[in-house]
This record gives sequence, C-alpha cells and structure tokens, in this order.
Amino acid sequence: MRPRLAAISAGLDELGCTALLVLAASAQDTDLAAFLPGPVHLGECLLVLPRGGEPRLGFMTDMERHEAAATGLGLLAPEELDVSRWASDFPEPAPFLAQVAGRALDHCGLAPGRVALAGHGQAGVIQGACALLAAQGWTWVPGNALVLAARKRKEPAELAGIREAAAAAGDALRSVARLLAAANVQSGNGGELWLAGERLTVARLRAEIASVFAGRGLEQPRGNIIAPAEEGGVPHSAGTPDRVLRAGESLVVDVFPRGRLFADCTRTFCAGDPPEALARAHAAVRDALAEAHLRSAPGVRGWDVQEAVCARFAAAGYPTPISEPGNTRGYVHNLGHGVGFDVHEFPIFKKTSGAEGVLREGDVFTLEPGLYDPAERYGVRLEDLVHLDAEGLESLTPLPYDLDPRAWT
Amino acid sequence: MRPRLAAISAGLDELGCTALLVLAASAQDTDLAAFLPGPVHLGECLLVLPRGGEPRLGFMTDMERHEAAATGLGLLAPEELDVSRWASDFPEPAPFLAQVAGRALDHCGLAPGRVALAGHGQAGVIQGACALLAAQGWTWVPGNALVLAARKRKEPAELAGIREAAAAAGDALRSVARLLAAANVQSGNGGELWLAGERLTVARLRAEIASVFAGRGLEQPRGNIIAPAEEGGVPHSAGTPDRVLRAGESLVVDVFPRGRLFADCTRTFCAGDPPEALARAHAAVRDALAEAHLRSAPGVRGWDVQEAVCARFAAAGYPTPISEPGNTRGYVHNLGHGVGFDVHEFPIFKKTSGAEGVLREGDVFTLEPGLYDPAERYGVRLEDLVHLDAEGLESLTPLPYDLDPRAWT
Repeated sequence: MRPRLAAISAGLDELGCTALLVLAASAQDTDLAAFLPGPVHLGECLLVLPRGGEPRLGFMTDMERHEAAATGLGLLAPEELDVSRWASDFPEPAPFLAQVAGRALDHCGLAPGRVALAGHGQAGVIQGACALLAAQGWTWVPGNALVLAARKRKEPAELAGIREAAAAAGDALRSVARLLAAANVQSGNGGELWLAGERLTVARLRAEIASVFAGRGLEQPRGNIIAPAEEGGVPHSAGTPDRVLRAGESLVVDVFPRGRLFADCTRTFCAGDPPEALARAHAAVRDALAEAHLRSAPGVRGWDVQEAVCARFAAAGYPTPISEPGNTRGYVHNLGHGVGFDVHEFPIFKKTSGAEGVLREGDVFTLEPGLYDPAERYGVRLEDLVHLDAEGLESLTPLPYDLDPRAWT
Repeated sequence: MRPRLAAISAGLDELGCTALLVLAASAQDTDLAAFLPGPVHLGECLLVLPRGGEPRLGFMTDMERHEAAATGLGLLAPEELDVSRWASDFPEPAPFLAQVAGRALDHCGLAPGRVALAGHGQAGVIQGACALLAAQGWTWVPGNALVLAARKRKEPAELAGIREAAAAAGDALRSVARLLAAANVQSGNGGELWLAGERLTVARLRAEIASVFAGRGLEQPRGNIIAPAEEGGVPHSAGTPDRVLRAGESLVVDVFPRGRLFADCTRTFCAGDPPEALARAHAAVRDALAEAHLRSAPGVRGWDVQEAVCARFAAAGYPTPISEPGNTRGYVHNLGHGVGFDVHEFPIFKKTSGAEGVLREGDVFTLEPGLYDPAERYGVRLEDLVHLDAEGLESLTPLPYDLDPRAWT
C-alpha cells in the first residue's frame, strides 16, 4: 500500500492539491477499496488522504465501528464527524454530505483549498455538496483518474483476488463447453441443441455459470454475455434468455465475475460444423490474439498493439475502426482494458491515452480481439486476462480457444 | 410508467427545472432503471426527461444499439451525441461528459437553464462536468431525491421482481434453518456445531445461501450478514467466514439478494437452548414486529411506528435511541427502509423525514426491530419485507420467526 499512497501524494502535488477526498456509498466503492486491506461491510463512508499524510476512513454509524476498525486505518468516527447533528440539522442529502465532508477535511488538519475528488455517489448530491463547500472556499479537481492510475499496478493481495476470479471464470467456461459437447443436435428442428430432454437455451447456460460462481463465492454484479449467432454479431448484446441454441451457430460467452476483484474472459463456441465464414473469422481472431500476446510488454502503448491487430485484420480482408471508422462489420472495438476492483479500468487502449495507455509491470488487463458480422449472423471474440510482470506476460485464463466444445473435454 | 413520468414532471415544476438529467455508469443505475421496462445491457449512458415531455435514452457505443432499442424509449444514439468527436477532442472524462450531456440536453430542445440532476457516477467527474456546463449557463439542482420519490410507489413489474427475490430470500433462510437443525452439538468443544464431519462455520452457511440464490438467478452484490453471538451484537458486522457456530448462541442471518430488484429479510436463530436473556430479547422483538405490522398503514409516518416500537421496548426495560441517544445496547437503529432497485430507498423512518417518510399505498419496505447486547454477546433482529396496498399490509416474507431451527422444518 505504501507505493500506492506515495503515488497519490505525487499526483496531488502535480495537481496542486492538498488532499484527496474519496466519497463512497459503501466500502465496495472501487476508489475506496484501493485503500482497504480487505473486504469490510460499511455503508456510506469517505476517506481523506492529506498529501504526504496517512489516510483516514470516516463512517456514518456506530453500528459499523467493528467493521471500520478491522481496516486498521485511522478512523473518523461518527461522533467526530458530528453525524447526528448534521442529520438532524440538514435532512437533505447534499447539505448533510457537505457538512460531514467539511468536518472530515477539518479533522485532518486541512484548511479550505484545492482538493482532488474521487469515489462515486449520487450525481445530484455530489454536485450539490461540492457547490456548498465551494462557497466555503474549497476548490475541486477531478481525482478519479488519479486513483485509477494508482490502482493500475496491482498489490499482491489484489492479484491473488483476480487469480481466484479468473480461475472460476475458467471453470465456468469449461462447464459451458461440457454442456454444449453433451447436447444432441435435432436435425429436424433447424439444428436445435437438446440436453436431458429439453432445448438448450441461453438461460440454461446462464444458470450453469451462476452455479459455478456461487460455488466459489463469486458474484456477477454486471451480468454476463451469452450471445448466439445474430445476437453475438453485436458485441454488447447480452443474449436473450429463452433463445434456443443451434448447431452451426457461433456462441460468444463472455463472463466477468467478481470476488473482491473482477476477472474477465471470453470464448466463442460452435457445436457442430461451423460455416466457412465463421471458421475463417475464428482463425483470424486466434492469430490476432497471439499477436497481441507477443506485442504486450512493459513500456508498449496499448494503442500500438491495437494498431498491429488492426493491420493484421485488414490484411485478412476485415474492416477495422482504423480502416473504416464507425464500422459495424469486422473488428469493431478496442483491444482490451484493465481489470481490477472494476471490470473496466487502467490501462486503456485508446489512441488519445497518455500514461494510462502505457502497459507497465504489475498491470492486469484483457486482450480481446473479435470479428463480427450481423448480416452473416456471427460473432467471434477471444478474450484472455493477462498479468504483465518482470518475467513477461502471463495468461490468467489458460483455456482452450477451440470453437468445437468437444475439443475442450 | 405514466404516473411516474407525471410525478417527475410535477416535481420539476416545483423545483423550477425544465428537465431531469440522469447520468449512469450502466443501465443498472437505480435512478435510470426506474424508467426502463426491463433489464438491458448498457454501459455508460444517460437519460433526459424534459418537463412534460418524453424520456430519451442516450448511449455511448454503437455496439449497444440493439440493447438500447429494446427499451422502446426514444434514443439519443452515439452519432447524435457526437461521441467519437468528443472522445477524440476531450479525452479527459469530465470535459467529455460535459460535451455529451450538453449535446443530449440540446437534442431534447433544452436551452441552458435549471436542470435537476440524478443518477450516479464518479464524484470528481460529475463535479467537473457540472462545473463546465455551469459556465455555459446550466444551473444544477439535486434531483436524486425526486427520482427516489417517484420510485417509491412500485410498478406492477417491479413488485413482481421484488416478490421473486423475496421468495428466494425465504428459500435461503429455510436452507440455513435446515443446516442448523441437522447439525450435531459437540458438548466437549464449547458446544460447537458439526455437520457431515466438519465444524459448521459462517462460510458454510454463506456458500449454502449463495447456491440457493444462484439457482434462482439472483445475486448478492452487497453481500449479506451472518453474524453469530458477539458479532451479531453489533448490527452491521457481517460475520467472520471461519467463525465456528455454537449451540446456545444467537445467529443473525440478514440476506438482501437482487434480481432486477432487491429483497431484504432477516431471521435470528439459536441451535440448542437459548440463554434466558436471548430468549427474552427474542420474544420482545417478536412483539415489536407484530406491533409494527399493525401500525403500518397508508398515511402513517414511519417515525410514528418507530416511536411506538421504542415505547414498547422501553416498557420492557430496553434502552432505545429515543430514551438514550447513541446507545449501543438495546434497540439501536431505525425500524425500516424502502426496498426496490436499491436496498435502501424511500420510505424512510427518520424523525426529520417529510413526504418521503410517510407510508403510502404501493410502497415496499422493511420492518426490522432488533435488540443487541455486545457485552452479553447476543443480537436479535427480525426483518419482514412488506407491501402496503389497498387491502392493507402484506408480508412478502411469510416465514417462521422461531429461534429454534428445528421449529422451521
């Protein structure tokens, strides 16, 4: 945690800020969790980190005193923040928050000045509270990116948490492969897949995946994507629950479970014989992913890897966002994103990125090339979660890439 | 949805605002979900509701066009919002959001003026974007409470969603009772509970509950509380995973699963013979809950019910927040809270509440009296989720209240 605190202090210095204030609806807040040693059960809370100083955690109810104490952080208890008084004098949430946050800053020895603001909350309440504090002389600087930058390099315990979630994602994808491999093709019914006397649906796979994650203590707070054929042809279509799966169709399965941290992994299946266009796209995506693995190294920009992947797809005859901006056929998205307390964080892979777009030791991110053709009714995406360290690039999702689920077993 | 839109428009009129702007990191945003007909898979998005007009949903990537279209709402597509241009010209998130939101308001025919702001987001980004738009003449009014008020009365599909989650909460609590009833007491080991050759722990119950919810397609994004004895003596202690359960101890089990909406339900168990203080507290909490059920009716203030419950506890000799503000022994919290897209919403049960503290037809809320004694190492809480309608109060969690898990089977 020391290097992370130092990084924040250096960032505050650059921004000309005396402190970081993190507002949170719960201890699960991704900007707040980055400063906690492990999971605790807190409702509305906040954290003040004076530049060069120690973080202090403020909480709102005495009922949470044991949870707050378990963090080992310096605390700002409800009585120090005068929570009861403000709750009574200012029942509206924005003035209440302004009073509590003002008292927290004051208790940390800060006088009105420039403060970087991070965390998450109700938009209207945040805006209202900041405006009230601005009238008292506080000046706000957006600070979420500062915390995101400090979260980019994972702490060992965080990497361990991601590994756990990634292992479970692998189990879930293997379970999906098992069900698909065990299904029978009903040739009289447009190639419907049947299992145990029932049509195999998106909902059935979703239940299987949920059960695997529950058994490992994981959640899917952002859902997942189980998108056959025409649905998989649009990358963010989640998949319709009662859609029956069929032989010869692509099936994109993208899971992003969370323990304390997220993992993120995608494979694409096809039970039965794939149409030629699908098989060809799948081979091109495998090649692109291999190239992305090879090119990802400390100091490389994510955008450079995206460009290399685009060049490869273009050479194979597929449109890309570089050759045809706004395309909906071919390769239509970015190559990857960081993963941690949230499913999308730094590094990012955009052309416009600065330091947050440079791959560094300690980063955990996805590499996820894909090819889509809504008219041809297919989507293919292969997504590995990788960890970059001194030894090179390690895949946290060492799974088969095969379209054919029988090749998985 | 019509009455809800009308309620928002009336609220905007009172606030002197021309529109409501809802900012959201995803379609799961609780303020945004209140305007959607069902679950969709969208990342960053927003909604503009001009006073007296129709809502329009803005989304950021063409990859989500099918998900957005499935809402049936008027849309603000990425090209209308000029997302690509702003992403390129303003890579920092606050100016990017300011441009996109400004374009969305403009597309809805709004000129700079007073706008109510709701939804949720990154605190620093929200503050920064609002400040940039303020410089263009937009004036912000906190609007989260306006949406919370409009969400208070549940739509039929929302009530159905809560019923499903509540039924699953009931299944989970019955599963816990079954495990506790089946456990053997190891009299030589301080009364440890053993099951299938292993010590029965908090973690074992947590796995059981997760499995029940996964089987019904539910998540626990906020965790749960499984708090034995000394841990249950502090209401928000979540429970330590490897804590072994023992006969004669209280065990507070508080689950709040989410499908599209949340449910929330608590029971307290004691395997073996309860100490007299625990049995007495449990009986007092049952009486208090019965009184709360009887008194909850349309037009009654939540605070009035809280006062009645406090009077009853005080008469039985227990400290309450009214008799002894800041107490940590006895009855130490509020009586309940609304439940819906979020686990804590309107109605609320505070003394300072206005209209948001008055129980009305269509409300769904908890009634959850409890008694706690950290020194005596017990906690007791019984929480029903109820729906208030023209016929009266309906419990959505019709479960036994018994301490003894064997009485549940």
